[in-house]
Amino acid sequence: MPDLHKWTLVAGGASGARCGRLTTPHGVVETPAFIPVGTKATVKGVRPETLREIGATIVLANTYHLSLRPGAEVIRDLGGLHAVMGWDGPILTDSGGFQVFSLAGLRRVDDAGVTFRNHIDGAEMTLTPERAMAIQNDLGADIIMALDVCPPYPCSREEAAEAVRRTLLWLDRCRAAHRRADQSLWPIVQGGVERDLREQCARRMVDMDFPAYAIGGVSVGEGHALLREVVGWTTPLLPADRPRYMMGVGEPRDLAACIAAGVDLFDCVLPTRNGRNACAFTADGMIRLRNEVYKTDVRPIEADCDCPTCRRFSRGVLRHLFASDEMLGPILLSIHNLRFFTRFFERLRQAIRQGRFDAEAQGLLDRYYQND
Amino acid sequence: MPDLHKWTLVAGGASGARCGRLTTPHGVVETPAFIPVGTKATVKGVRPETLREIGATIVLANTYHLSLRPGAEVIRDLGGLHAVMGWDGPILTDSGGFQVFSLAGLRRVDDAGVTFRNHIDGAEMTLTPERAMAIQNDLGADIIMALDVCPPYPCSREEAAEAVRRTLLWLDRCRAAHRRADQSLWPIVQGGVERDLREQCARRMVDMDFPAYAIGGVSVGEGHALLREVVGWTTPLLPADRPRYMMGVGEPRDLAACIAAGVDLFDCVLPTRNGRNACAFTADGMIRLRNEVYKTDVRPIEADCDCPTCRRFSRGVLRHLFASDEMLGPILLSIHNLRFFTRFFERLRQAIRQGRFDAEAQGLLDRYYQND
Repeated sequence: MPDLHKWTLVAGGASGARCGRLTTPHGVVETPAFIPVGTKATVKGVRPETLREIGATIVLANTYHLSLRPGAEVIRDLGGLHAVMGWDGPILTDSGGFQVFSLAGLRRVDDAGVTFRNHIDGAEMTLTPERAMAIQNDLGADIIMALDVCPPYPCSREEAAEAVRRTLLWLDRCRAAHRRADQSLWPIVQGGVERDLREQCARRMVDMDFPAYAIGGVSVGEGHALLREVVGWTTPLLPADRPRYMMGVGEPRDLAACIAAGVDLFDCVLPTRNGRNACAFTADGMIRLRNEVYKTDVRPIEADCDCPTCRRFSRGVLRHLFASDEMLGPILLSIHNLRFFTRFFERLRQAIRQGRFDAEAQGLLDRYYQND
Repeated sequence: MPDLHKWTLVAGGASGARCGRLTTPHGVVETPAFIPVGTKATVKGVRPETLREIGATIVLANTYHLSLRPGAEVIRDLGGLHAVMGWDGPILTDSGGFQVFSLAGLRRVDDAGVTFRNHIDGAEMTLTPERAMAIQNDLGADIIMALDVCPPYPCSREEAAEAVRRTLLWLDRCRAAHRRADQSLWPIVQGGVERDLREQCARRMVDMDFPAYAIGGVSVGEGHALLREVVGWTTPLLPADRPRYMMGVGEPRDLAACIAAGVDLFDCVLPTRNGRNACAFTADGMIRLRNEVYKTDVRPIEADCDCPTCRRFSRGVLRHLFASDEMLGPILLSIHNLRFFTRFFERLRQAIRQGRFDAEAQGLLDRYYQND
């Protein structure tokens, strides 16, 4: 869909950090960009108006969760994900693969697909490439993901190789089964921490010519050093004129390393999950707002933060809200944490445009990890 | 405080429904007005920006809860209730009496005060008129309430008489102990469902000359008919040039009856509590959004509602959010329900100004209770 989906380079070169502009049927995303996670068709505790206000431009929803409840047909009948999420901007859905391989029980994988017991009522279900496409066609996101096999870390070389083989096999079938021209289908490079497997998978996918490429099977416990290696092997093989999406990565040092390697899109539950647990992201590192030390602290979470939470509430107030189990605590802190992430990306985009990415990233990380 | 706190009649006569304008140090409240309840210094799940957006002009916080956690001194050190709630408009705090008499355990009441075990850790505490004033002076609301004795319904005539006696005794001590000229102290008429006791209590309080008068000990199980009687006995004895506040009343037929009797202010947890339980207020009565019938209902909660929830989300989406235990369900429905209440009052205020209160109220109630 060259007209509906397009990514154009704005700044940066053929390798390294770069700025781009991703066009979708529901609007434009300036990259590198952070994608807030709206698992069950809602970014937990945050209204879509607020997401927009704090600079989010694209959101993600989870195929696995939505296919279980309320069901893809219900989402379709309610007008599709944009209507359900109350969000008229770009949306991306994952394939369901990651959740099936991490959340569901009693998996049986063969070339046909994966059979599992869902985590809600234990009913046996099967996810095939065709079913993953049918569900995502019903959900109606702008960007949909091919069903992949996502092995755990660590796994044997044989398991990683088999995951690549099946992921490629399923990719063909996903492409054949995909029915909506307004949705862009992206494949996911697998291969564990095996360089040749990552390269083989990436090359085969590039040969198949997709509008963008995701890197999966990372941030599953392999650690920062191996994550850097994986992204370093993979991105040079991906076409320079297509966006690259690193799935499930949100730790600031990981984000900076991946952006430096030329990755454009990221999603992660970290800002909202930590926000619900009273952990606040700040430029000087994470702070835990349940701590007694904040009891009468009248300062905002961050002195120079422009988020609606910091403009109005102090650390002491947030501590009280969490100590009192008030919904407003998770709400306000999720908003702040999401703004921390969108601003982190805004700063890095500006630095890329100004040719000073390395210095900006190093400065942000040095300050963020000063107490590590 | 004739300058800081003032209520002026805008429309309506010496008896019956009336419009007024209440001035406080933090702004003006057009009456009759609904006061959303922010028990622990937060209207559950609703950000203050949103409260303002949907027409709330004044909020309430609970002295009992806040004195237990985080403590009145902590609220004071955090800048007072306005800072803690992130709300720069008028705030009212209750005296703590109602909660002590309904939530706390093992009460012992004597003329000195009430000794009880708090509902959080069971520690024994004492609330006296002096302590109720000290706490509310620390909290810093615009309007504070005198400590009253709030007997249950039903109670013996002796118990009701004793409650009136102690409430009047304590009122003298509250007035003597109150330390902040920027806070307006209001007394609470008690007397159960005994006409002579209500009249006696009201007359004594009016003799003491307060800037406003509250009616307490209602909506405790006595039912609509007795509530009407109580308000009908009491309001004619209260000065026509002072606002009247009916505590804890929120059922639409009760609100309309009390406004017809000349009451100006109301607070109730109904919109937020019902909102958290998936019960939506509509002009055609309450609907329960967990019901299967709304599964693929693409209509908003109310077709002509101007709230942020109805502008963006359908009944089917709300059902999904509640079925999935997503915070956004309670958030969105609390917003809608609060807007239902603020709009109910806006319509009745307009009707009073236009001299057609009875017809408007009857029309709203006929429609709301059409299925009763």
